[in-house]
Amino acid sequence: MVKAVVFDAYGTLFDVYSIVSTAESIFPGRGPVLATCWRDKQIEYTRLRTLCNRYADFWQVTSDALVFCCEDLGLPLTEDDRARLMAEYERLQAFPENMPALERMRSAGLPLGILSNGTQKMLETALAASGLGNYLDKILSVDAVRKFKTASEAYDLGPKAFGIPAGDILFVSSNGWDVSGAAWFGYHTFWLNRANRPIERLGIKPHAVGTTMDNVATYAVGNRGRPE
Amino acid sequence: MVKAVVFDAYGTLFDVYSIVSTAESIFPGRGPVLATCWRDKQIEYTRLRTLCNRYADFWQVTSDALVFCCEDLGLPLTEDDRARLMAEYERLQAFPENMPALERMRSAGLPLGILSNGTQKMLETALAASGLGNYLDKILSVDAVRKFKTASEAYDLGPKAFGIPAGDILFVSSNGWDVSGAAWFGYHTFWLNRANRPIERLGIKPHAVGTTMDNVATYAVGNRGRPE
Repeated sequence: MVKAVVFDAYGTLFDVYSIVSTAESIFPGRGPVLATCWRDKQIEYTRLRTLCNRYADFWQVTSDALVFCCEDLGLPLTEDDRARLMAEYERLQAFPENMPALERMRSAGLPLGILSNGTQKMLETALAASGLGNYLDKILSVDAVRKFKTASEAYDLGPKAFGIPAGDILFVSSNGWDVSGAAWFGYHTFWLNRANRPIERLGIKPHAVGTTMDNVATYAVGNRGRPE
Repeated sequence: MVKAVVFDAYGTLFDVYSIVSTAESIFPGRGPVLATCWRDKQIEYTRLRTLCNRYADFWQVTSDALVFCCEDLGLPLTEDDRARLMAEYERLQAFPENMPALERMRSAGLPLGILSNGTQKMLETALAASGLGNYLDKILSVDAVRKFKTASEAYDLGPKAFGIPAGDILFVSSNGWDVSGAAWFGYHTFWLNRANRPIERLGIKPHAVGTTMDNVATYAVGNRGRPE
């Protein structure tokens, strides 16, 4: 039974496509490859730092990853361009289908939250820019525990904030690895597989899969349980 | 002062280029992209499993990563081809420059070891196939602690096996992330940067950098300390 819904941020609630456009405008013809490298390296750094207990916040890690990727791809990055690319994280847009879907879940009495690697400031700025802020009851940043997902301390923020077991919370992410980590932790999981990727071969499966936020809302509302 | 030298395996002692050729012979035109995806996903799975305390050994993780990548790239993988690609890990060749360099370090009285994510069986098979086995005093697999690098439990195998502090052991890897993890742990580190990649932006630097195993030998022998 689903008693609350917690969402990943980047790629799940927020559309990071605008980053590709800005990267493309700065480095014509290289925008997509830079955006892909940047995202992969950003995630790699969160994992390495968490494995080694060397936390630096997501803003720092994101900037470090950008600097590495530009050097690796032979793209000369000025300080102005670095700041311009980083600023994209402060004005991310929501996927247009999100608002009606979040509205349906709220109307069905489900409390909603966000649980993200982003800092509180990054999340609050993006929620304000995208207009999603009003729909979310809890803004949970892993910064509180200084460990990134998929560490259990990070996932544990959800049950603690909502005061219910992870198994009563639907955890929604577009990232297969994030859904796997959440399922291992004990969440009820929904993989919002917008990009039609194969399932991760980690020996665990999400409880449900769909391709739109509307699918999420239908599933969450259909499986909602009475709040405590 | 360097009192022992410990090497990473894949990419550092063993040349994984043969994997590209086999991948290319099975999927013409897609060998390099498959090999890159496979390696990245393999490493990603080691990190996710370690972060979530869900260990599966490197043979399993390597096979899982291959299956994912073939599906992701739209390459139909038969069971025979899967076995053929996996078998590459059992007959990896050493970089030709390795043997004289390892010989120099041994002759200077430095004990040598390998510390790898690979299983004991994978390491022993590859050491036999490559002819490197005779040069190495300790074969250390993270399988003993069921955590992959960059977990501290994995790096701790070195000091424990040699009975000296990490700071007296030169840790050599071609992987920037591995050298970073080892430096955080406390090793004396050498980044064998064969591919001329940029330094990882993790706020820590290796103690030394070179592009050949011969550079490693010169550094290790030049800085060797009297054994306890």
